[in-house]
Amino acid sequence: MTTTQHTDFHGVFPYLVSPTDDQGNIRCEVLARLCQDLITAGVHGLAPLGSTGEFAYLDAAQREQVVGTAIEATAGRVPVVAGVASTTIRDAQAQARRYEDLGADGILAIMEAYFPIDDDGVYQYFKSIAEATSLPVVLYTNPNFQRSDLSVSTLERLSHIPNIRYIKDASSNTGRLLSIMNRVQGRMQVFAASAHIPAAVMLIGGVGWMAGPACVAPAQSVQLYQLCKGQNWGQAMALQRRLWLLNQAFAKYNLAACIKGGLTLQGYDVGKPLPPQAPLTDAGMAEVGDVLRHIGAL
Amino acid sequence: MTTTQHTDFHGVFPYLVSPTDDQGNIRCEVLARLCQDLITAGVHGLAPLGSTGEFAYLDAAQREQVVGTAIEATAGRVPVVAGVASTTIRDAQAQARRYEDLGADGILAIMEAYFPIDDDGVYQYFKSIAEATSLPVVLYTNPNFQRSDLSVSTLERLSHIPNIRYIKDASSNTGRLLSIMNRVQGRMQVFAASAHIPAAVMLIGGVGWMAGPACVAPAQSVQLYQLCKGQNWGQAMALQRRLWLLNQAFAKYNLAACIKGGLTLQGYDVGKPLPPQAPLTDAGMAEVGDVLRHIGAL
Amino acid sequence: MTTTQHTDFHGVFPYLVSPTDDQGNIRCEVLARLCQDLITAGVHGLAPLGSTGEFAYLDAAQREQVVGTAIEATAGRVPVVAGVASTTIRDAQAQARRYEDLGADGILAIMEAYFPIDDDGVYQYFKSIAEATSLPVVLYTNPNFQRSDLSVSTLERLSHIPNIRYIKDASSNTGRLLSIMNRVQGRMQVFAASAHIPAAVMLIGGVGWMAGPACVAPAQSVQLYQLCKGQNWGQAMALQRRLWLLNQAFAKYNLAACIKGGLTLQGYDVGKPLPPQAPLTDAGMAEVGDVLRHIGAL
Amino acid sequence: MTTTQHTDFHGVFPYLVSPTDDQGNIRCEVLARLCQDLITAGVHGLAPLGSTGEFAYLDAAQREQVVGTAIEATAGRVPVVAGVASTTIRDAQAQARRYEDLGADGILAIMEAYFPIDDDGVYQYFKSIAEATSLPVVLYTNPNFQRSDLSVSTLERLSHIPNIRYIKDASSNTGRLLSIMNRVQGRMQVFAASAHIPAAVMLIGGVGWMAGPACVAPAQSVQLYQLCKGQNWGQAMALQRRLWLLNQAFAKYNLAACIKGGLTLQGYDVGKPLPPQAPLTDAGMAEVGDVLRHIGAL
Repeated sequence: MTTTQHTDFHGVFPYLVSPTDDQGNIRCEVLARLCQDLITAGVHGLAPLGSTGEFAYLDAAQREQVVGTAIEATAGRVPVVAGVASTTIRDAQAQARRYEDLGADGILAIMEAYFPIDDDGVYQYFKSIAEATSLPVVLYTNPNFQRSDLSVSTLERLSHIPNIRYIKDASSNTGRLLSIMNRVQGRMQVFAASAHIPAAVMLIGGVGWMAGPACVAPAQSVQLYQLCKGQNWGQAMALQRRLWLLNQAFAKYNLAACIKGGLTLQGYDVGKPLPPQAPLTDAGMAEVGDVLRHIGAL
Repeated sequence: MTTTQHTDFHGVFPYLVSPTDDQGNIRCEVLARLCQDLITAGVHGLAPLGSTGEFAYLDAAQREQVVGTAIEATAGRVPVVAGVASTTIRDAQAQARRYEDLGADGILAIMEAYFPIDDDGVYQYFKSIAEATSLPVVLYTNPNFQRSDLSVSTLERLSHIPNIRYIKDASSNTGRLLSIMNRVQGRMQVFAASAHIPAAVMLIGGVGWMAGPACVAPAQSVQLYQLCKGQNWGQAMALQRRLWLLNQAFAKYNLAACIKGGLTLQGYDVGKPLPPQAPLTDAGMAEVGDVLRHIGAL
Repeated sequence: MTTTQHTDFHGVFPYLVSPTDDQGNIRCEVLARLCQDLITAGVHGLAPLGSTGEFAYLDAAQREQVVGTAIEATAGRVPVVAGVASTTIRDAQAQARRYEDLGADGILAIMEAYFPIDDDGVYQYFKSIAEATSLPVVLYTNPNFQRSDLSVSTLERLSHIPNIRYIKDASSNTGRLLSIMNRVQGRMQVFAASAHIPAAVMLIGGVGWMAGPACVAPAQSVQLYQLCKGQNWGQAMALQRRLWLLNQAFAKYNLAACIKGGLTLQGYDVGKPLPPQAPLTDAGMAEVGDVLRHIGAL
Repeated sequence: MTTTQHTDFHGVFPYLVSPTDDQGNIRCEVLARLCQDLITAGVHGLAPLGSTGEFAYLDAAQREQVVGTAIEATAGRVPVVAGVASTTIRDAQAQARRYEDLGADGILAIMEAYFPIDDDGVYQYFKSIAEATSLPVVLYTNPNFQRSDLSVSTLERLSHIPNIRYIKDASSNTGRLLSIMNRVQGRMQVFAASAHIPAAVMLIGGVGWMAGPACVAPAQSVQLYQLCKGQNWGQAMALQRRLWLLNQAFAKYNLAACIKGGLTLQGYDVGKPLPPQAPLTDAGMAEVGDVLRHIGAL
């Protein structure tokens, strides 16, 4: 696998959905086409196996298929940051090594838990992933769905590990991002999640966003990023305000169901979220369709 | 009581602490001096009986003393928005009428609860307060401490009541503020709380902030507000980043204890938070002192 | 006020509702009749101003009316344990003193909070109430509605204060009761709440229960208590299983609304819960009526 | 694999730990010896892959090893109820079929979730498992650690499926168990978990308990069960009170760490919980040792 070396992550990284057929098998060709179209639309990177990618619903072989397909379809044009998620250090390290071998450009590190884990356990988990790979690592914390959280002081400890270079925080608490920035002093860069307002995160010093909604509105997301980068805050906010309707719609529904529903409307045969997750209702489909039309994405 | 008519609220409204002596009695003269100094520093309004004002720890007579003292000391120079908080409609309406009689310029409406209240009960509570007063009403929701919350759809219903004109949301979820703005279409204006980054809220369309930390850093807060109003985002963020250290410190401790500790360091004899609340520890005092010196407020 | 000395609390203590008219004023005569009827039915004590008594919705004068009425109507026949609830030590002590002066036989001590209180603050609060009165004190913890909780280690500390002699735990975690008993070694006795199964709490060593449902089913509650006391577990559980339907119904609705609804069906003009609390719906009334008929209480 | 047919589950089912070496591999011979000793001590069944069995930390191959080893060591003497846990219906069904093929006597069905699942999705998940196997199914709900819960009305719906015959509820809310019994009318039997007091659950109509602590105190647990079955409540509670110290100790620590620590003290080389879970601290080891000695299990 030949890939260009990508060592600086910034901009819009859509969280890729994992397209599936009715038996729950991955539809690799649909995923490949989606990657192609997103890159054409100007996104700065791709992130397979985030929350929206239903990592929690796929087995090891399916996860590899998703990552492998995304890397192949991308062919080095933009960085591919692959999600590693586990409850054990051993399994997380194996995933990270495997995705590096497949040609990933970075690792999005996610910690799953069953029993509560103390701060030191959380530190060891992420540190161990960083040690298992030579790739840049993006920490991903989502206190809503993962049964563990990254405290600001644990983040600071982790920021001293050289290849832990980014954090994607999905806590919805935007002030926390500024607290993190104040604490890590540039050793880690911050990406927004769909629970934050991207323009606001760019204002306070973020470097971009990794989020499901960018899958269905890649061109608009890239435009927003450029307005923010150009300090064109007035126009940025005008666009942001409209794009936020998308995040509002997605917050009302299961994220994966929503993005899969939106992509289906756009002609991608991505299927439904894996059962027992409920697919988007008819009312949800109508609402997502309206929003996509309103922002010029349908 | 002669007061100038204030009908437009915007800018920096410090949440006033309620200074107390060792017996728990209100120190009116300390409060009056604080009001005087805050106005001299340029704040745009004053908000007695917010969370930081320990409304939940004062009886009816003490609350009146606090509101009355603030109104008298202000003498109409800036609007005074008085906190009304209760579990019952009857009591909340009585408070609102009383504070209007005392000369308040606005009502900060807070709902307390013991048993859970459904959306319609929440709507009735705030609507009833608005009906009991001719003053502009600021809704205040703080899901961390109050045992009720204002859903976005309830907020939208309330936004159609003419004198409900502002919301101060202390949820820490900044994206929610943009969702609210999208829903209420200008019928309500949004104030930030200390859990949000003020500059970020100004960027997305906020009109100011009502917060405890402004009590100890009024001049710096006003400067930040002016930079934001002037769209001077680069300088605004440079100042915001430093001021955020104050919010970080306050988030670590009981808010009232922290602001009272900071004001004590600044020479105001505001006393300690009412027992059994713990006063700021020595370590907390040292930390707050360091931050205040760092931002030029000590 | 002459009262017999009551120093041992055990058995069934109904939480009294606070009957109100449409203006929110206390209906003392209805409360007096209810007290009379409950005593006739054989209850072992009365508890005004518990959760079901809507203490959180009444002002100081109304609370005194409720306590005074219950004491007068009881005339020393059974102990009256009056609820003291506040956010501050000063106010809680004043309430305790006042209710002792009125002739109460015990204090049910409840801690309200706004900002979080650490274990030492919780300890100081309850200790201060015990010091303000010569009466036996019953600690009351309800983590669902009060914004503070009593940890087992704080309970153990408090159990060494001589007149803190009982705990009523409404946590729904029955195992916690046995942990408490193991820790306090008989220095405190345990009462069940409506969230626990009374017969199960009696089995593990409880001395009775303080609960809202006993207000509408006093005779049945007393019968259950006697079966438990007589170690007649088979019959006790047969009755308990039926009575539990009452607790199930109450758990579905606002507790005060439910008990007031049930008492209304029984002919007590107790009114509705204070607004903005919602009264029991028609469906709820029908369900409560069915259960009361099923257990022979209507 | 020849096994006696077991169709009635009752009594004490220890949750088996999954012994591991330092590399995280399953120690089958240690597990086999533990099964042998538990059966000798009189337990009524064995439950591999419960929470304490660290199912959430093992891959598919390891889970099969654990279940296969337990079945082989048991050799049909008592029923083996194997834990099935997944986020998807497809995977859960595959696990259930595999464990039935291996010779399990029952399935303990656990639902994992990432995004929230509505009641209908929960129903479909458990119904699909029941349809994939001819074995009796035990529902297992633990709202503390699993990101989904079984509402009482969903339980009632599930109780009409013929081979869903038991529920093990680890909610700590003992009253909920009686509500469930009242609703399912004998179509499902109830097992207690370590968060409930076994004797109290037996009193209200339970048929036994499935719990980690029984792994380290099997003889005492069986004795308690027999006292309860014989309605010998006085002696039962005397024993229960002492055994509860074990549950109290386990509630303080990570459950798997605790049981593994206790078994290590008893001479079983079960290793430590899988990283990043923390092993029992020295203080924890000392406390568990004291309790085991106190109850005669060391």
